[in-house]
Amino acid sequence: MKILVIGATGLVGGAAADALEAFGDEVLRASKSSELAVDLTEPESIQALFERIGSVDAVVSAVGSVPFKPLADLTADDYRSAYLGKVAAQLDVVRIGTPHLPDGGSITLTTGILAREPIRTGAAAAMANGALESFVISAAAELPRGLRINAVSPTVLTEATGYHSSFPGFVPVPAAEVGRAFVKSVHGVQTGQVFAL
Amino acid sequence: MKILVIGATGLVGGAAADALEAFGDEVLRASKSSELAVDLTEPESIQALFERIGSVDAVVSAVGSVPFKPLADLTADDYRSAYLGKVAAQLDVVRIGTPHLPDGGSITLTTGILAREPIRTGAAAAMANGALESFVISAAAELPRGLRINAVSPTVLTEATGYHSSFPGFVPVPAAEVGRAFVKSVHGVQTGQVFAL
Repeated sequence: MKILVIGATGLVGGAAADALEAFGDEVLRASKSSELAVDLTEPESIQALFERIGSVDAVVSAVGSVPFKPLADLTADDYRSAYLGKVAAQLDVVRIGTPHLPDGGSITLTTGILAREPIRTGAAAAMANGALESFVISAAAELPRGLRINAVSPTVLTEATGYHSSFPGFVPVPAAEVGRAFVKSVHGVQTGQVFAL
Repeated sequence: MKILVIGATGLVGGAAADALEAFGDEVLRASKSSELAVDLTEPESIQALFERIGSVDAVVSAVGSVPFKPLADLTADDYRSAYLGKVAAQLDVVRIGTPHLPDGGSITLTTGILAREPIRTGAAAAMANGALESFVISAAAELPRGLRINAVSPTVLTEATGYHSSFPGFVPVPAAEVGRAFVKSVHGVQTGQVFAL
């Protein structure tokens, strides 16, 4: 398959791209800083990316920046920033990417464990992850032409050592294992699922 | 207890207010059209409401308007409208209301079944509900002074007959039963919970 991975320079996106290549796929790696550039804050940039690459069999989105602050310090602007940076950005990928997918194609989004478990400073991230996980359940039921959509929702990654102290007692998951969840989503038959790991 | 119910003219908010009064609480009923008026699109209006009423023991928020459209018709503006109308509005109630609550007070938000089950045209509502349910899990862990927060997440209401055809096979729940879930949240000991019914 030919697969577009958006956010491919990140730890999760890179792991997804590596796992898909190891599986035998042709992977197009896009990100803000890649040669295949895309700015997810601009719908026109997402549109231009899809027009540039032509048809792909599947889209993987591994993007999203959200502010981490104590609950008492989170402002309306912080929540809006989390919405725009993680939720709206990935909703745009779905909305703009769907018409470019062939029958039976798939879209896989990235959320995270904060949708279901709390950590200090994680309320805005939780909001963003929960929004996307419920969206995926709903969107799967309405996508046309046999298109599928899932979310991969990892805990803290083994390689993200800088974050481990924020996740006390959480068992980190190796990036390679997270990558395989994307292979499962892209090459499997499931839709409307959240692959939690 | 003295309890502020925001959105008290709605079916869910009215049921919450009625159930709390039946339990013996003093209920202050606020809404856009009540004498105790509040415009949730304006943080200043929420702030003014809390200053006007003084201290309350608990806050119930039963508000949120979201667009219902087929997935293919939902625009970026529709999703943003769902975020502002249901998510940001209730996050503002939490953010602005928290300092006005006494130690051990509580906040109860309203979400809905679309966070976990799909219907046609429900993707934006699902996104909004999922955002709030994950937020509640996270916020509960960081609220100070023994404050609690929960969400009541009902299916379609028995009395909302105009919506029944959109929920085929779903078993409607009487408003009075939804109201009792708010009593459970306000007078119980749980926090970070989603009361699904």
